[in-house]
Amino acid sequence: MTDAPPAPEAGSGTAAMRRAGLARLAALLGDRFATGQAVREQHANLTSWHPVQPPDAVVFPETTEEVAAIVRLCGQHGLPLIPFGVGSSLEAGCNAPFGGVSVDMGRMNAVLVVHEEDMDCVVQAGVTRNQLNAHLRDLGLFFPVDPGADATLGGMASTRASGTAAVRYGTMKDNVLALTVVMPDGSVRKTGTRARKSSAGYDITRLFVGAEGTLGIITELTVRLHGIPPAVTAAICSFPDLGSACDTVIMAIRLGIPVARVELLDEVQVRACNRHSGLGLAERPTLFLEFHGSEAGVREQAESFGEIVADHGGGSFAWAETTEARNRLWQARHEVYWACLELRPGSKFIATDVCVPISRLADCMVETKRDIEATGLVAPIVGHVGDGNFHVSVMGMVEDAEEMARIKAFIGRLNERAIAMDGTCTGEHGIGQGKQEYLLREHGDNVLTMRAIKAALDPHGVMNPGKVFVA
Amino acid sequence: MTDAPPAPEAGSGTAAMRRAGLARLAALLGDRFATGQAVREQHANLTSWHPVQPPDAVVFPETTEEVAAIVRLCGQHGLPLIPFGVGSSLEAGCNAPFGGVSVDMGRMNAVLVVHEEDMDCVVQAGVTRNQLNAHLRDLGLFFPVDPGADATLGGMASTRASGTAAVRYGTMKDNVLALTVVMPDGSVRKTGTRARKSSAGYDITRLFVGAEGTLGIITELTVRLHGIPPAVTAAICSFPDLGSACDTVIMAIRLGIPVARVELLDEVQVRACNRHSGLGLAERPTLFLEFHGSEAGVREQAESFGEIVADHGGGSFAWAETTEARNRLWQARHEVYWACLELRPGSKFIATDVCVPISRLADCMVETKRDIEATGLVAPIVGHVGDGNFHVSVMGMVEDAEEMARIKAFIGRLNERAIAMDGTCTGEHGIGQGKQEYLLREHGDNVLTMRAIKAALDPHGVMNPGKVFVA
Repeated sequence: MTDAPPAPEAGSGTAAMRRAGLARLAALLGDRFATGQAVREQHANLTSWHPVQPPDAVVFPETTEEVAAIVRLCGQHGLPLIPFGVGSSLEAGCNAPFGGVSVDMGRMNAVLVVHEEDMDCVVQAGVTRNQLNAHLRDLGLFFPVDPGADATLGGMASTRASGTAAVRYGTMKDNVLALTVVMPDGSVRKTGTRARKSSAGYDITRLFVGAEGTLGIITELTVRLHGIPPAVTAAICSFPDLGSACDTVIMAIRLGIPVARVELLDEVQVRACNRHSGLGLAERPTLFLEFHGSEAGVREQAESFGEIVADHGGGSFAWAETTEARNRLWQARHEVYWACLELRPGSKFIATDVCVPISRLADCMVETKRDIEATGLVAPIVGHVGDGNFHVSVMGMVEDAEEMARIKAFIGRLNERAIAMDGTCTGEHGIGQGKQEYLLREHGDNVLTMRAIKAALDPHGVMNPGKVFVA
Repeated sequence: MTDAPPAPEAGSGTAAMRRAGLARLAALLGDRFATGQAVREQHANLTSWHPVQPPDAVVFPETTEEVAAIVRLCGQHGLPLIPFGVGSSLEAGCNAPFGGVSVDMGRMNAVLVVHEEDMDCVVQAGVTRNQLNAHLRDLGLFFPVDPGADATLGGMASTRASGTAAVRYGTMKDNVLALTVVMPDGSVRKTGTRARKSSAGYDITRLFVGAEGTLGIITELTVRLHGIPPAVTAAICSFPDLGSACDTVIMAIRLGIPVARVELLDEVQVRACNRHSGLGLAERPTLFLEFHGSEAGVREQAESFGEIVADHGGGSFAWAETTEARNRLWQARHEVYWACLELRPGSKFIATDVCVPISRLADCMVETKRDIEATGLVAPIVGHVGDGNFHVSVMGMVEDAEEMARIKAFIGRLNERAIAMDGTCTGEHGIGQGKQEYLLREHGDNVLTMRAIKAALDPHGVMNPGKVFVA
């Protein structure tokens, strides 16, 4: 780690320069410029254990050109810029550790055009996932990336979001065709076309997907759509242990059963869901499944999967074809958040995720459960088991410094464990402020390549400073 | 285009420096260093209309550490480096316009480890596609990216190759999990892990996929594998015109029929294939299809597809379940190259490709066919129609300067046409030396982002200079 480029300068404006910049922004944007404490705090870390670090101001642009003007002005005044979607980042990606301007994309929420035949659409970055799917429903199309929160497409691209349907439909990496981005110098660039594939030059689209706003601000996205499947079935089954649940999924994928969703809840999570939703499920590791396809296809998928379940000692394989029955089966999965909060009244939900090769998933989960017990934590586990990604929901008393220290140490060990298994310190939450040291542990000198790109494209460090990289 | 970083210096060694560098390489590598004319010419452009520009020397490294030593030494002596797989680049990616050293990866051809449960494997960059699939066959696994040529995995990653199965299994972009790369300064970096997905930092893997060796040399790849499907069926059907063939495919994809391969031959190509293989097919636009899945699944896919064919005026839908019958159906497609050469004895095969949104594919192909006629060319068309990518095989007399000028002008119009339809100037062949001006036309100022990255990672322009970017 010898030839690291200089650390970002975080905008580097003096206090007077910054004040003058904020005054110019106020003049430019009128009532779409805000500095009230409440609005600033709503544009900081909302959803994680990190301290709340509000920006100096919040702006609400309405066009790409306006974003470009804001970025140029902030650059001239050494003001950091922090892109903001709905604030659902789980690693404090929206915090403003160096102050600056939060760029709230919420008013750029137009679905610009849907190309039905090509199954793609162009949206502004502030369009949310549910908004887009409501827009598409009558066309028989949908956008499949589902990270849980009703996040904006821009935010989802920036954290390379994925979620429950990634095993079948891919992540944001796979579903973004092109972006319009405002670069750190305020220039506007289009990174791709609507062609489904291209070998024309460097993949700048994929560079911005997952860059967490540190290289520029995404203002428009062209994304792939999928046809709403003619039939959807759901299934649920429990297992004597995590290993047999994971082995079942490994075998199903190996045999090419195109599972659309496959979620694994550990027995702690099932217990929480039973308590919350009164489901009466067996308190054992449990798979929640969804199959998409033709009528005959989903039946065949469910039956084939059921055979593999039986071979692996799974029990009570139940499947449901109607929407109502399906929703009943998936109810517990959908209510995980609330069920967790009830597990330990007064606690907060501290979410963390890792991802490992699927062959190591059971080991990683079992070791992590032992660690949870030894550390004395309340922390159910839910896994997107089809791709080796799992979440630990640590229910923590965030005011208790000793407990928080134990939780942070636990999260550290979890990351180290995943990295040691040739996995990653985050499958879908991103680095933000929370995982910078683990990015280094995972990538080693490859972080130098990332920093060289950051320095080349954002030499003054105006774009979301203090994120991704250790300052 | 005002703030372009300085053009690459193409190594910038003086003649004396370079001579000294070659002498040091000879000492380092012994008989794995070659300067004979024949071997140098075999390591230049082998497959396109571009002039042959051999390197000064060819080296045959056996380890990543040896590649790193070669890169460091070449850097010290201002010698350009050109990575070489099997030389099947169609845009002269292997040429050495500034001289330098061709780094032949052919001896780094070990399959290092296959992780069956995780369905991934780690290979050296010189492993070829057929070699890998032969290695995997007994495990019931395969690597799906099939660009036609028996290319190396390193070369395929570098040009973001795809081919006939991309509509179902994705391109190299989708199937590479991690890379080991030697950077332009000779440092060795690992760009990812074996986790199926990650949100940890910038996607350096995707930056190297498609960089055509201009950012470093790929020495190892971790790639995704797929289970050999239990059943494979093939089908063939002809259409009154290109539009109805394209509409059929659009509808099938819309309905979620997971077609594994779908190739469209125009009537000129069918005529050539009939003549070469004696197939007696109707000389009309023809789809060649392959379906992968369970026994019942492939039957359902073929039947559903057949119904759509009938709805669109397609005729003589024939499908085959046995390997033998399937091979017979696909024979014509496999023999396209030879069939084309027979169309015009003495001519060479000048391959070019573009990719457009699928809704524009019929228009683009029809306009291109008119252009072919008006230009007086012999040029059959084959399309990977599932993703809007098509190839024009111009059968040209490369010694005839006037004809070559007409062919180049035709290719220029083809690129402009695709770009105007929101498509790309190359779906899978890459930029190399042939499409640099169209990269600019397609990407505009986004090329500045690419050049800034090139300048940051390879400040002395040692890596494959004269490719991708206009010098």
